[in-house]
Amino acid sequence: MGRLPHEGDLLKSIEGFCRENGITLGVFTALGAVKSARLAYYDQESQEYRGFAVDEPMEIVSCIGNISLLNGQPIAHAHLALSDGEGRTISGHLMLGTPVFACEIFIQELLGEPLVRRRDEETGGTLWQGD
Amino acid sequence: MGRLPHEGDLLKSIEGFCRENGITLGVFTALGAVKSARLAYYDQESQEYRGFAVDEPMEIVSCIGNISLLNGQPIAHAHLALSDGEGRTISGHLMLGTPVFACEIFIQELLGEPLVRRRDEETGGTLWQGD
Amino acid sequence: MGRLPHEGDLLKSIEGFCRENGITLGVFTALGAVKSARLAYYDQESQEYRGFAVDEPMEIVSCIGNISLLNGQPIAHAHLALSDGEGRTISGHLMLGTPVFACEIFIQELLGEPLVRRRDEETGGTLWQGD
Repeated sequence: MGRLPHEGDLLKSIEGFCRENGITLGVFTALGAVKSARLAYYDQESQEYRGFAVDEPMEIVSCIGNISLLNGQPIAHAHLALSDGEGRTISGHLMLGTPVFACEIFIQELLGEPLVRRRDEETGGTLWQGD
Repeated sequence: MGRLPHEGDLLKSIEGFCRENGITLGVFTALGAVKSARLAYYDQESQEYRGFAVDEPMEIVSCIGNISLLNGQPIAHAHLALSDGEGRTISGHLMLGTPVFACEIFIQELLGEPLVRRRDEETGGTLWQGD
Repeated sequence: MGRLPHEGDLLKSIEGFCRENGITLGVFTALGAVKSARLAYYDQESQEYRGFAVDEPMEIVSCIGNISLLNGQPIAHAHLALSDGEGRTISGHLMLGTPVFACEIFIQELLGEPLVRRRDEETGGTLWQGD
């Protein structure tokens, strides 16, 4: 458990921590606040992510994610819920381009067989195979 | 940690996994996407669940739940937050009738005394007794 | 894992449990329902929390938080997402003044060096130092 650096990119900070600490399988939850955010929604028909920006400071209501391997490197997959000064909530898939204001994260490393992401034909996503 | 089957029912898939693996006490978090959803709100006055449907593909922003025993079988209790293409968030108690598009779940089995659900007079809910 | 008392204050109940059980470092997730709530948004410019009230019974969609030390006592920091009868979601930083209707919580105690909150100059928040 610890803090992510102020003004660091949320996704990059998580992946950087995992690379430096040799974490290739794990789960995490986080709370805190961001200065702005880039989120996405996966269009299940066109099988593409559609990104959107949140251009104001927001609370991180929840950040739930996991760590697994893509092309031999730890990759974080996370979904984020954000809230504004009236409690209005905006959520989606966390993208690069989300600067941290303050973030407290708990990363739980898991042992056992690594999970590896590969393109999945059925959904078009980059999913774990064979489990 | 693993994937739930594409097009499987979210709640049934979790309970089925627990039954097959003898998990009677645990917690889980999940993220991913659903093709549609059935959620509910517990009316604290009438002490009844009021269900509602979400009839479009949505991201699973967060799915937080636990496993305990009801009538001798593992039962999952989960609350779900969903988001659409603009990040609008709809949330509630997860019901049967929520088909998975893709779902990555982390189930943590707990050891110790089982928790058993029984009708609670005060709230009308099916809650754990004696803890 | 267990239930918090009906009509108890959500934040006080968590901190009371930790004090009684000597938990000074940990994480938790919870779900359930509240009778009403007091939430807040941290204004990153003025560096002050701005509170707001939710004056109706709501589902606890997610409650994600951690336990660390402030002035030698265990303190809980949690963010809460709530939903109403139509699934509309209101979220923020959990404040005192949030009475529980029913709440199922999983607290995971962590071992190792305690994390201590102190005032952080950069953000104005009460954050962990030196990690």
